[in-house]
Amino acid sequence: MKIYDRPGFPNPSRIRIVLAEKGLESNIEFVPVDLIAAEHKQPAFLAKNPSGVLPVLELDDGTFISECTAITEYLDNLDGKPTLTGRTPREKALIHMMQRRAESYVLDPLGVFFHHATPGLGEALRAFKSPNWEGRADLGRREGDKAKGGLKYFDEVLSKQPYLAGNTFSMADITLLAGLAFAEALGAMPPSLTALKQWQERVAALPPVKNSSGQTFLPEDLKRMGY
Amino acid sequence: MKIYDRPGFPNPSRIRIVLAEKGLESNIEFVPVDLIAAEHKQPAFLAKNPSGVLPVLELDDGTFISECTAITEYLDNLDGKPTLTGRTPREKALIHMMQRRAESYVLDPLGVFFHHATPGLGEALRAFKSPNWEGRADLGRREGDKAKGGLKYFDEVLSKQPYLAGNTFSMADITLLAGLAFAEALGAMPPSLTALKQWQERVAALPPVKNSSGQTFLPEDLKRMGY
Repeated sequence: MKIYDRPGFPNPSRIRIVLAEKGLESNIEFVPVDLIAAEHKQPAFLAKNPSGVLPVLELDDGTFISECTAITEYLDNLDGKPTLTGRTPREKALIHMMQRRAESYVLDPLGVFFHHATPGLGEALRAFKSPNWEGRADLGRREGDKAKGGLKYFDEVLSKQPYLAGNTFSMADITLLAGLAFAEALGAMPPSLTALKQWQERVAALPPVKNSSGQTFLPEDLKRMGY
Repeated sequence: MKIYDRPGFPNPSRIRIVLAEKGLESNIEFVPVDLIAAEHKQPAFLAKNPSGVLPVLELDDGTFISECTAITEYLDNLDGKPTLTGRTPREKALIHMMQRRAESYVLDPLGVFFHHATPGLGEALRAFKSPNWEGRADLGRREGDKAKGGLKYFDEVLSKQPYLAGNTFSMADITLLAGLAFAEALGAMPPSLTALKQWQERVAALPPVKNSSGQTFLPEDLKRMGY
């Protein structure tokens, strides 16, 4: 199998943790994609994933799978022993609900904030993401506020239970972990989210997160660009 | 089990089709929610689903499940014989990928178009959806164009295979069906999407769609409001 990604960015990091959890990293050929040069918005990449985002999984038969939820369902079920996507109907439901919330309350709005209210990844990508950059800063800031509200919601959830979907670590926790690290890198963290920070420390110490090659959640690209 | 919904609207219709496919409609107590009066944006409903959208499934133990993907995973796996969410890792991956695309390419942008570039469901809801209505019409129109592009993408997919995830009807087809009906109700259909229209006719004749109480996809509310 191949994975097209760029280490350290939020969505690629999610799948690297899944690979570590399932002991699959050594089965993967990683193909780097140049996000800064907007390689993922060019025809060759769009043929693999018309959404124009990373990561993409290529199966040995040439099938391309994109969307982190779909890639995680694939990898987690390969050995017939899912640990991240739920076993019972109730587990599956709670995990998928919280997975979607972690995306739509935190990670997705932070992406809009990053690409429209900050210089984002620079000029090459801006032509695709925010051609009318000045005019869209308001939208970006509004989404940044939405992400802050989302982080407060999860702080409340985690003050009552150890993981997002209940008592077990799941793909929803991985997604929120990526969102939280992204918020911190962008300086978009609300203060005093004690339960969320305690959960972050606890989850960061779990083997799949600690042993993942995507664990840093601090892209070198962002550091170079001054974030 | 209870389902909080409003018949005929896109997301409630998706779950009504899932219920028909699984033969579960008679096990459900349906609780109507007054979308026009923005009941789903009030504290009593937000306690059930902080996202403030329909439908919501309430389990007999009082657990609330929202997000159509999560509700579908629950209902489809209850009998241990999933027919809509995939059995093999590859099926699960393709279905979840296409499910997400049907949402993010078509159904979600149409929702933004509806609530920001048209009078939507009227004034009560507008206070929550688009308080600065005039200023957001541009955003709505841009999302309407995105949905049209999404419908063209699916037309191309369906010119090569019978269903979104391959040879079998799945939850992704249900989602696109809802999106297509919504686009038609809003007059947002691009012309000449032959493969998509043929697929629509074929899917509309399938028992779970034909027998579903959500089959009409033409909310009385919208008709009354002149759509």
